Amino acid sequence: MSDSIFTEQLKWFLSGFIDGEGSFCLNIKSRKDSKYGLRIEPAFYVYQHEKSVHILELLRKMFGCGSIHRKTSPYSVFTYQISGIKPCYTKVIPFFEKYPLIVKSQTFEIFKKAVDFMYKKRHLTKEGFLYLVDLAYEINQQGKGKKWEKETIITKILRDYTPNS
Amino acid sequence: MSDSIFTEQLKWFLSGFIDGEGSFCLNIKSRKDSKYGLRIEPAFYVYQHEKSVHILELLRKMFGCGSIHRKTSPYSVFTYQISGIKPCYTKVIPFFEKYPLIVKSQTFEIFKKAVDFMYKKRHLTKEGFLYLVDLAYEINQQGKGKKWEKETIITKILRDYTPNS
Repeated sequence: MSDSIFTEQLKWFLSGFIDGEGSFCLNIKSRKDSKYGLRIEPAFYVYQHEKSVHILELLRKMFGCGSIHRKTSPYSVFTYQISGIKPCYTKVIPFFEKYPLIVKSQTFEIFKKAVDFMYKKRHLTKEGFLYLVDLAYEINQQGKGKKWEKETIITKILRDYTPNS
Repeated sequence: MSDSIFTEQLKWFLSGFIDGEGSFCLNIKSRKDSKYGLRIEPAFYVYQHEKSVHILELLRKMFGCGSIHRKTSPYSVFTYQISGIKPCYTKVIPFFEKYPLIVKSQTFEIFKKAVDFMYKKRHLTKEGFLYLVDLAYEINQQGKGKKWEKETIITKILRDYTPNS
């Protein structure tokens, strides 16, 4: 990160920009090698039309991590993504603690709670994992866009999922 | 505008937010009592879902003008709008000159050029009005969303439109 470019003013500006264009997610993924056949991954996204992809490059430079990809649909949109517990804990969360959001402040609080919980490995117990599932369904308007019903996931966890069950 | 609330940090943040969620328009409206049967009106908009309408109220407080309305479709979206030459010239433009945009900087430059031109009443000549039509079609990706073809408008102006022609 070059501090000569990233003034305090620019950081406040970019926090405001992300409050409009960004999103904080807890993605539930099917993973046969995981304890409950599931993995919950924190991810931070910013979407932008291809004509202004330069602001995503600016964000990547500022956070010092993450990747930029073209979406399959719509093809004209690019996504800047930071995913995984460590980058979210060490890069994403400290930024928004210093430059707080307005519109997405509640979503960010849930995200922060989940990432902090995972960073401390508290999701490795059954109770911890169930708590994380709660947060994952709370973060995006009661699980909007989630692949599975919350009840299906809870049932999997409670019966101690094994790959062949 | 209460300066105790609107710190420099918040103003930079809100500029960034608007860079994501705002738009600068030059609306072409049919007006029988206008010289060419048309009026071009500058307008600045910020859209937001009803659950975060509070940020639009914050913007209205900061700019000290404008109005907030619910959209007809989609009904869950609200619009904050500042329209008209004087409010755009005295409130909108000075703000973004002090807290410049990144993504929408080029759009803003066209908007500023048009508002400045209208404020100085230079659009009241035929040549001036034709220049303004050019800017109105330039501002939103070559007139995307405009009701009329540019050529139809230019023809109206060139033949010195009167209400009964």
